[in-house]
Order: sequence, then structure tokens, then C-alpha cells
Amino acid sequence: MSATRAADTPTLFAFTAGDTGEWMIDRVETVQGGRLDAAKRLSVVHGPDAATARAGVWTLRGVTSHTRYTTAHEAALLAAKQAPLGRPEATRAALIPIRKSAQWWALAQDERRAIYEERSRHTSIGLEYLPEIARRLHHSRDLGEPFDFLTWFEYAPEHAAAFDRLVARLRASEEWRFVDREIDVRLSRVAE
Amino acid sequence: MSATRAADTPTLFAFTAGDTGEWMIDRVETVQGGRLDAAKRLSVVHGPDAATARAGVWTLRGVTSHTRYTTAHEAALLAAKQAPLGRPEATRAALIPIRKSAQWWALAQDERRAIYEERSRHTSIGLEYLPEIARRLHHSRDLGEPFDFLTWFEYAPEHAAAFDRLVARLRASEEWRFVDREIDVRLSRVAE
Repeated sequence: MSATRAADTPTLFAFTAGDTGEWMIDRVETVQGGRLDAAKRLSVVHGPDAATARAGVWTLRGVTSHTRYTTAHEAALLAAKQAPLGRPEATRAALIPIRKSAQWWALAQDERRAIYEERSRHTSIGLEYLPEIARRLHHSRDLGEPFDFLTWFEYAPEHAAAFDRLVARLRASEEWRFVDREIDVRLSRVAE
Repeated sequence: MSATRAADTPTLFAFTAGDTGEWMIDRVETVQGGRLDAAKRLSVVHGPDAATARAGVWTLRGVTSHTRYTTAHEAALLAAKQAPLGRPEATRAALIPIRKSAQWWALAQDERRAIYEERSRHTSIGLEYLPEIARRLHHSRDLGEPFDFLTWFEYAPEHAAAFDRLVARLRASEEWRFVDREIDVRLSRVAE
């Protein structure tokens, strides 16, 4: 039992692109698969409001939940090094929705874990970028959403190049051969 | 890659207790935690209709999804032995909603897997009752439902005692120390 790990109830988040929101959309890059339309702003809401969030140009939903591949040892390493979201200096963000192939989802747990970490080093690579890059994962597949996962990242402007290296390394991994749709949305916090 | 394993899109199911439905509710036993009200019939719907199913006396929802603990080896054993739902002779059913504790969900994947199979033999015990007892698991926790899992079982009347032994063995396992709510709903198919 690790006191360092959250046992929170799953929380629904909605990411709505449109004319309002606390984040300016700087760029929407289609990495693979069908595109998402451009918009000016992104609004992020969670809890009961997330279920009814207005469509805007597009709305993507996902739920925070327990980890699916992380071992107790890895969870302790992550907890010791990671920073929270919402740091004042972290004025840049990225929302990266991905979908994995039917081939991935047909794999058993041990097969998926082996690709995810033993062969692709997903957690190990992420650890190298802590605490500069903060991260929250949202699960979407079981909600009937168009993507399987939405990952939200926050970092300071001086770590934007490091973030680019992080995503490039993951995209070069064996795990990413199973990604069949990916969008990379880059954002800046709207000045108050 | 195992061709024997389904790569289906997750499908939403709704189980509605009320006055209508293809299953007669023979008994609702509260094994642990808060109760569910009695009703005459249970209706099972899936797909788009499941999202809007009427409340009835109660409605529980869950989504079929990829397996979370099953190894490739175990999946092959299950696929070789299991029977489908909907067999004409399987006129008895059980719906067993369970919720696990915050302590369970705070465990890492390797810790949960060790309790689930290496110490509680969940899959191994279930295998002993195949093909007589057919089963479908629905995930509910990430949907914000009151239970974490809904498991649906079907069997012929002559295998009712075997089914009772199966659930008794699982309830005696270490895994079940992490179950903090469980209802056992027994049903009979309504004669045409």
C-alpha cells in the first residue's frame, strides 16, 4: 500500500475547443488519422459540468482513473519526482488525444505491458522529464469517445523543446506502432 | 496476437429492474453494503439504447472492455473452454454487482494482479466451472456508477449448485477482502 498514490474517485473531464476558455490554442497538428478542427480557445471543466459541457467546435471527454500498467516500484519513482499541474510558471500546455488500434486492444495484459514498458520504456522516458513536464491522463475508450486517451501536459516556456523531445521519443517507440490516430494541440495560458 | 480474443469496441449495457424484461428476478441478496430494492423483472439492453434506458426500480450500467489482468496464456485457456451466453438450456442467470474499496484502487497494477490471480486464483477458479457457467464482465467504475463491476452469468438449472460453489470460493479469497459492496441477483428466463 503506497500512501503516495491517489485513491481518488474517477473524475470526468471535458476539453471544449471554441471561442472561450482559459487556454489559447496555438497550434493543432494532426500527427496521424482524422483531423480536429481549428479553434481559438480551449475550456477545461471537470466533475458534473463535464458531462453536459457545450459542444463548441469540438468536445473531448475522458476520466481520470487508476493506473493500468504502472508497478508499485514505478509509482514510487513517479510520486517522488513529479510536479503538480497548475504551477504559475507552467504557462504552456499540450492536449494529445490518441487512439490505439484494434490489434492493441486484442492483446492480453502481459503483452500490452511488455510493449508499453519493457520494450518502449514509456514510464522510464516520462520519468526523465520530471518534474519539468507535469501530466494528467484521461481514459476515454470505455466512454464511447473517438479517442482512447487524452493526455494533458503543462510546462514552462523554457521546457518546450524538452517536451518536443519527449513526444518524439515516444512516437518512435514500438508502442506507437499501435497508435492509429493522434492529434497534438499546443496551448498557452490566457494572461489574466 | 491471439485470433481467439475479441477486439470488439466497448459496448454499453444497462440492467433495469422493474415490471418488464426477459428475466424474472427470483432473489436479490445483499451480500455486503447497501441494498438494492426488490423488483419483478430485469431487462437487459445494450448499445445506444443502454445510455437512455428508463430507470425502473433501479438501472445499473457497465461497459464490456478489454481484459485488465488476464495473460495471453490464461486468455487461450479461457477461449478453449468457455461457452457463449444465450444457450437455450441456460435458463438461469445471476447479476452480481460489486464495488471494491479505495484501498484496492490505490494499489499498483502488479499488486492488484498478484492478489487477483497469484494469491486468489480468480481466473483459475473460474476455469474449473467452464463451460457450464458462461460469463460477461461489465466495467462501471469509470462511468461514475455506484458499483465498479457488473458480472452476468448464465447456466442450466442443474448447474445452480456448482455456481453457488464458484461464488462461495471467490468470496472466501483474499481478493474479496477488498470488496465493500456486493449484491447477488438470481434470475430465470421468462418462458416464451
